[in-house]
Amino acid sequence: MALWVGYMAAILGTICWIPQAVQVWRARETKALSLPAQALFLATVTLWLIYGVMIGDWPLILANVVAVTMVGAIVLAKLKFG
Amino acid sequence: MALWVGYMAAILGTICWIPQAVQVWRARETKALSLPAQALFLATVTLWLIYGVMIGDWPLILANVVAVTMVGAIVLAKLKFG
Repeated sequence: MALWVGYMAAILGTICWIPQAVQVWRARETKALSLPAQALFLATVTLWLIYGVMIGDWPLILANVVAVTMVGAIVLAKLKFG
Repeated sequence: MALWVGYMAAILGTICWIPQAVQVWRARETKALSLPAQALFLATVTLWLIYGVMIGDWPLILANVVAVTMVGAIVLAKLKFG
């Protein structure tokens, strides 16, 4: 049972970045987003990706490749739209 | 070495919510935040907390108690300020 809760958390933790990435690029508006927070998110998911590669854990690698792409898009939007 | 990368990711993944929570309550402005995304973040950190409790993992429990509190504050701000 615990394993399923963990898998659900990992899946949600990956797709949760998508609506925010879509919204900032659609609305081209990022004033309320904290750049330090977004930079920390990007550092976090990048570290999880490196960790996944180091321990050869495919779910961690796949989840965080998606997360790095999405958070990267959000950081780009914040830098572009201010 | 991998363990340190994992611990760094876990620590960053906890504190990364704090600047965003502080900003939305200070600026009282949340237009750019996606409510579906914030709801998914809240669900994610809540599931990681439940998972941590189920497997008795204190770092996971502590990290996600902080995250649930911060993301909860962000969701409240989004509901309040629109």
